[in-house]
Amino acid sequence: MASGLSFLLAARQCEIGELEDLAKTSELLGVLGRFTHELQRERGASNGYLGSQGGRFAARRLEQAAQCERAELLVRESFDRLDSDASRVRNGARLFSRIAVVLHAMDSLPALRARIAAQQLTPAEATKAFVQLIAGLLAVVFEAADSATDPEVSRALVAMFNFMQGKEFAGQERAFGSLVFASGGTDAGGQQHWRHLIDLQQGCLQVFLEFSSPAAVLANLSSQDPDVMADLERLRRIGCTPGRQDPELSQAWFDCSTARIDAMRVVEAQLAANLRVLCSQRIEQARGELRDQQAILDSLARQASPAEPAHYGPHLERSVVALVQEQTLRLQAMSDELDTVRATLNERKVIERAKGLLMAHRQLSEEEAYKMLRQTAMNQNKRVLDVAEAVLAMADVLPVRGR
Amino acid sequence: MASGLSFLLAARQCEIGELEDLAKTSELLGVLGRFTHELQRERGASNGYLGSQGGRFAARRLEQAAQCERAELLVRESFDRLDSDASRVRNGARLFSRIAVVLHAMDSLPALRARIAAQQLTPAEATKAFVQLIAGLLAVVFEAADSATDPEVSRALVAMFNFMQGKEFAGQERAFGSLVFASGGTDAGGQQHWRHLIDLQQGCLQVFLEFSSPAAVLANLSSQDPDVMADLERLRRIGCTPGRQDPELSQAWFDCSTARIDAMRVVEAQLAANLRVLCSQRIEQARGELRDQQAILDSLARQASPAEPAHYGPHLERSVVALVQEQTLRLQAMSDELDTVRATLNERKVIERAKGLLMAHRQLSEEEAYKMLRQTAMNQNKRVLDVAEAVLAMADVLPVRGR
Repeated sequence: MASGLSFLLAARQCEIGELEDLAKTSELLGVLGRFTHELQRERGASNGYLGSQGGRFAARRLEQAAQCERAELLVRESFDRLDSDASRVRNGARLFSRIAVVLHAMDSLPALRARIAAQQLTPAEATKAFVQLIAGLLAVVFEAADSATDPEVSRALVAMFNFMQGKEFAGQERAFGSLVFASGGTDAGGQQHWRHLIDLQQGCLQVFLEFSSPAAVLANLSSQDPDVMADLERLRRIGCTPGRQDPELSQAWFDCSTARIDAMRVVEAQLAANLRVLCSQRIEQARGELRDQQAILDSLARQASPAEPAHYGPHLERSVVALVQEQTLRLQAMSDELDTVRATLNERKVIERAKGLLMAHRQLSEEEAYKMLRQTAMNQNKRVLDVAEAVLAMADVLPVRGR
Repeated sequence: MASGLSFLLAARQCEIGELEDLAKTSELLGVLGRFTHELQRERGASNGYLGSQGGRFAARRLEQAAQCERAELLVRESFDRLDSDASRVRNGARLFSRIAVVLHAMDSLPALRARIAAQQLTPAEATKAFVQLIAGLLAVVFEAADSATDPEVSRALVAMFNFMQGKEFAGQERAFGSLVFASGGTDAGGQQHWRHLIDLQQGCLQVFLEFSSPAAVLANLSSQDPDVMADLERLRRIGCTPGRQDPELSQAWFDCSTARIDAMRVVEAQLAANLRVLCSQRIEQARGELRDQQAILDSLARQASPAEPAHYGPHLERSVVALVQEQTLRLQAMSDELDTVRATLNERKVIERAKGLLMAHRQLSEEEAYKMLRQTAMNQNKRVLDVAEAVLAMADVLPVRGR
């Protein structure tokens, strides 16, 4: 019959199993990051191609689509590796559903490219299709972060997810700014949208800074060329000023924001590599601890009375109690830390859910819903999270329009 | 290469795998409930035996210990069944650590009984040992509830955990009241402790009522004999009144609270049985849905163009999109519901953590720490949870005494 000590070892083995799952997921995130980056570039090139009625970006778009297909292949191979022994993957139900959504969108990419080539879509329509696919890929990253059980890895995943999401908002800003300059200006609504995209990036980067290692923070800082950033801020200021814009600035804007996004991609790749190293280290560490524990238990078993193997002397008894207590306290501390990291993910979930509710009940766009939450928070001197929670609590009494 | 549809099926299989794990856990909870009940009775008999200097309860205690050992054997067998393929058990690290603690305490039961038989312990010391073991068993139930991913099952587990915890507080009240009557009365501190035990029971039963099915609520209501409950309230009132108590009431108190606890045990066994049925139903349902989905996908595959198997016609395309969306929305709704259920478990964790902090920093007993939280909440017109969160937020600045 299994003893308490054998369960102590089994608990350790579970920890190792969870870390090995995380290592697998980290591999996946690396290729997802690369694919997302190629899609962001293809979105930019497609926009340029459609915006110029096929006059520009034709070759660049085709070349970028080929790059994208190579990255896509790696993603599909990574997905396939997850699929083996599917029913035992932790958080598999949600992770696999997200993957199903993404694969379905990936299957439609050839058709999307054909319609872009034939100029059957507006830039806004093409952008929307790319944005949706990328949002699906980021949802996969989010699920991976949400299923991590090791606080250190979870922290790195939360940092990475927010960095990737921030980079995507930077990509959306690039596309929007290009259109604003190319079309000669925008109205108050467009200016507000632009500011919204900047705010979203800052929110993501704030969470990234909070959760990433000092080394990652430094890498991000040193990746940003001050000249590029100064240029970016100058062009943002010009683009957000009412009045007619010089279409020539479109290219300058595109190059400058691309330089920044490419620098972010370098940091992102480094985050993914760090994550893989972290997982390997944690696995090595847990395996070492398991070996040590096993050795202690073996020596305890040898010293135990052979007549009554379940009973140790008072000295051994204390060792066993200490081992059990140490592990319990350690897991408790890990669990407390994990709860703290997860709180950030939960905040995101609550805000997303409140946004979804407002969109459905008030027939708002996603951006309008967020703006309503933020405005209410500012008016009431509360956090957006508090307002989102209040909205969800009121869900049952909110009027539904149009039903 | 795996398609989105195959991941849709894999996601379903994961759901089924999670439900099968829950079914295993439910079996375990049934035997844990029985063992806890026998331990509660043995604690009562041991108290009576020690309190009467061995004059009473001698035979009853031995008989009860034998009952307890039979229930313990079932628990050990259930633990063994969990141990197979340990590294893939969900939430295994924490669950197995809790089990290691419990098994260690179970291994010490023969020694505890020998010391009770030799009257080498005070009733308070013996009670403490039983209370700790039972707390360890309840911690296993809590981990099981905390790892459930199906909201309906999670709801039933939260209800069951709180019912079991409430029953344990009822058992502690029985033991304490017996001592108060037998020793001829108690002081203000003892009266406050008695009221505390009643409050804790009410707190647990409130959560139970909130999360259990109407049938379970009804079962609980109808299990309570109004005469027994009236007797219980009368004896509580007498026991909590300052002044000298009639030691003869000790037996009446013990019988009356035992009648109530035994009735609770009947409800608890029914909750465990309901839980097993619920798990089976959910597994059947999920398997049926998997079969249906498989059939739809097979028929889609047959209708798809053989030349381009990855491309469906526009009609089939819509079916696939609908399938993917339906599953995503369903999982989102399940996840939202699960978050709501889990909030209750998280509240408990936060309060436990704040209590632990106050105990360490202010060198308070568990009860004093809880009282401090509750008193502060009453003074500030807040919830205990809010105060506990504030305490945790202040953790870094709290002074540590005695270091």
